Amino acid sequence: MYRESIKVLDCTIRDGGLVNRHQFSHDFVRRVYQAVSSAGVDYFEIGYVNSPTLFSASDYGPWKFCADADVRKATEGVENGAKISVMADVGRVDLDSILPADKSPYHMVRVASYVKGVDKAIALTDHFNDLGYETCINLMALSRDQGPELDEALDQCERESRAVAIYVVDSFGAMFQEEIEALVQRARRYVRTKELGFHGHNNQQLAFSNTIEAIIHGVNYLDATVYGMGRAAGNCTLELLLGFLKNPKFDIRPVLDLVAKDFIPLREKFEWGYIIPHMIAGQLNQHPQDALDMRKGDGREDYKAFYEKMVSLGLE
Amino acid sequence: MYRESIKVLDCTIRDGGLVNRHQFSHDFVRRVYQAVSSAGVDYFEIGYVNSPTLFSASDYGPWKFCADADVRKATEGVENGAKISVMADVGRVDLDSILPADKSPYHMVRVASYVKGVDKAIALTDHFNDLGYETCINLMALSRDQGPELDEALDQCERESRAVAIYVVDSFGAMFQEEIEALVQRARRYVRTKELGFHGHNNQQLAFSNTIEAIIHGVNYLDATVYGMGRAAGNCTLELLLGFLKNPKFDIRPVLDLVAKDFIPLREKFEWGYIIPHMIAGQLNQHPQDALDMRKGDGREDYKAFYEKMVSLGLE
Repeated sequence: MYRESIKVLDCTIRDGGLVNRHQFSHDFVRRVYQAVSSAGVDYFEIGYVNSPTLFSASDYGPWKFCADADVRKATEGVENGAKISVMADVGRVDLDSILPADKSPYHMVRVASYVKGVDKAIALTDHFNDLGYETCINLMALSRDQGPELDEALDQCERESRAVAIYVVDSFGAMFQEEIEALVQRARRYVRTKELGFHGHNNQQLAFSNTIEAIIHGVNYLDATVYGMGRAAGNCTLELLLGFLKNPKFDIRPVLDLVAKDFIPLREKFEWGYIIPHMIAGQLNQHPQDALDMRKGDGREDYKAFYEKMVSLGLE
Repeated sequence: MYRESIKVLDCTIRDGGLVNRHQFSHDFVRRVYQAVSSAGVDYFEIGYVNSPTLFSASDYGPWKFCADADVRKATEGVENGAKISVMADVGRVDLDSILPADKSPYHMVRVASYVKGVDKAIALTDHFNDLGYETCINLMALSRDQGPELDEALDQCERESRAVAIYVVDSFGAMFQEEIEALVQRARRYVRTKELGFHGHNNQQLAFSNTIEAIIHGVNYLDATVYGMGRAAGNCTLELLLGFLKNPKFDIRPVLDLVAKDFIPLREKFEWGYIIPHMIAGQLNQHPQDALDMRKGDGREDYKAFYEKMVSLGLE
């Protein structure tokens, strides 16, 4: 009944780090790593490899930079640990500081890119492939970028890159199942020898059902986060995904414990999930930044005014 | 682009009443009625018509009984008001107290029934049809009742009842889009001259996507509640559904205002939505009562123990 080729990637610390400026303690990260590893998750994405010359270490926590020593401190010694992944942004990595994969605490590097940046993204994955890393390319904001350049980018990812999986990403939480079906089928027309991945956002409570839809249409690399923690509305929740998948290797129980002990209290301090301004941004296919800004101000519950502002933006 | 035959039924006060023992003030109900009417919603379900001899009026609010005077007090005078609906349970209505439709403040009566009770449900709708009401039959718990008796019940609803719509109901929030597709297609094989309806629960964040799936397969009667308020995990949120539907008659803005002013504060007092024990009950296709009980006790965050208990129940 289950599909063995399915790989689950937990990106709680990476996407959730966008909520708290990556300021998780090493102990917290270790608890998440232990729990998702016990749960049978395949990959654990711990943060971004940004050059420390670009961002201040007093403004951001360690998972903005993922120095090898920090990654080791949080993950070393965990039994049957999931493979560790980091995310790299074009132009923000200090490539000279990256050790070959066999000397590094992480195994995979994912490069997130808009469609128009795909050439640079492929070049960056090439660099990591040369160093022995597994790589993925995450094509972002595909609810917006639906023009012919998307076909070209997919075709290039297939022909020119050595990525193990090409992700289609619904960055704005704007898509529903029929659109996911069409997008995955479109990607599959080009990406014939690599895996496809899906990363959704939960603005409209559709991240899980969109992930199911991607599974139905043959996508094997699936992103999820504990209790849905991630930027703005967050992501497909790991506990929903693990409950859905039938492979006996998955065990939801360590994740349930982790939610109870760590994420219920964390959610009291930081905001993510089904929040009306994020819902509105998703419905209107808009970038989350306006809603994030609005939630910091006095008018954080003035949903109607925000809706009217976002509709106007769409008309401009 | 839009389908004019789609009817949206707001059942916030009726299903949400299961959260607070129907203790909404008349003013609160009027504000909800005004907002959903302004939003273009077709039906407004205000509660249950239970005999006051069966339940104590000190334990429950007015919307457990829906006396004509209470319904009038909360709804009379609202401009372009949505049609008003009540729900009737077999054996709990004092039929002698029901006036003919033209003397009553409500227009529609929905009878909720398990598959095995369909004969009685049809008889009850007949009674209301004779009095001039529009009726619906809501077949509950269909994630469990998938045997041949479901075919028989659907066939009977089609042949023997005068209901305007036959609802398929995912009472346990256990189903996902492929199952909804199969269920709706199965219902359509029998229900050929009436409308189909869908009422979902949101245990797995799938109520909205399941509603979309029902729409895709021709279902025209759609239940939703403001901010998802409803029993346990609640329902498909009205603001998501209105944002999705393309009919220009729908206006999401009054609902956004209502959420901001009334439902954000209400959610502080009462619990519904994505709560892990309800998620677990949905995943395991269980009735919500165990999760509701568990949330009242000291172990309300002990998700793993609850999961293990529910898995054992499933094995017994």
